[in-house]
Amino acid sequence: MQIEIEMITQPIQPRRELPAALAGLAGAVAEFTGIVRAEENGRPVAALEYEAYAPMAEREMRRIIEAVGREHPCLAVRVIHRVGVIPVGEAAIYVAAFAPHRAEAFAMLTKFMDRLKQDVPIWKVRAIEQP
Amino acid sequence: MQIEIEMITQPIQPRRELPAALAGLAGAVAEFTGIVRAEENGRPVAALEYEAYAPMAEREMRRIIEAVGREHPCLAVRVIHRVGVIPVGEAAIYVAAFAPHRAEAFAMLTKFMDRLKQDVPIWKVRAIEQP
Repeated sequence: MQIEIEMITQPIQPRRELPAALAGLAGAVAEFTGIVRAEENGRPVAALEYEAYAPMAEREMRRIIEAVGREHPCLAVRVIHRVGVIPVGEAAIYVAAFAPHRAEAFAMLTKFMDRLKQDVPIWKVRAIEQP
Repeated sequence: MQIEIEMITQPIQPRRELPAALAGLAGAVAEFTGIVRAEENGRPVAALEYEAYAPMAEREMRRIIEAVGREHPCLAVRVIHRVGVIPVGEAAIYVAAFAPHRAEAFAMLTKFMDRLKQDVPIWKVRAIEQP
């Protein structure tokens, strides 16, 4: 299973293209994009600020992907997480899972996202209110 | 819930952009792309040919999205289905679900795909073998 993890501070450019070695093998690509909403805990916001302990966050994400992949084998998983100030309407995270069939790709995506929120040291440090 | 359904014979161009009216509301975009694999039932193929009874297929897809949406409310769902001859590595279907939170978007995507296979009059009419 190929794993790509990026943590960036610039806007996320989702990349759904398959790693070249996997052409013809993948029948399913499942993608998730998590976007900053205009409301956080009932209050209007203009942006959220995320902070990460990056080396540990990357290591944890890789560990989760490997663990989920043992149960739901995928061909490749790509994660792009943005940190810093993220304005409303822009993506904080993008995940793509490539698998022969859709069940594995969906399982990877949903389980990865659930565990990410529990186990990975990435925090919303503050909500920036609308001026 | 906004529903967009397209059936086309040309290559699918996935479109993840949010309908403008929903800016700031969607916190989750879940997408699925179903791709023709190089193997069908254990035999190498170069392409698959899909055929649909289009008016009924579109009606059924809409009905499924509305039914799933009652349980898992989404903001919008976009489906692009390709029919005709689809070469290996190209997409036969693209689905995007937009929701405030990811649980609804994932549920829409997985349940829609399960029911599509059961209920919608779109068939693989033949596998075109590698020359």
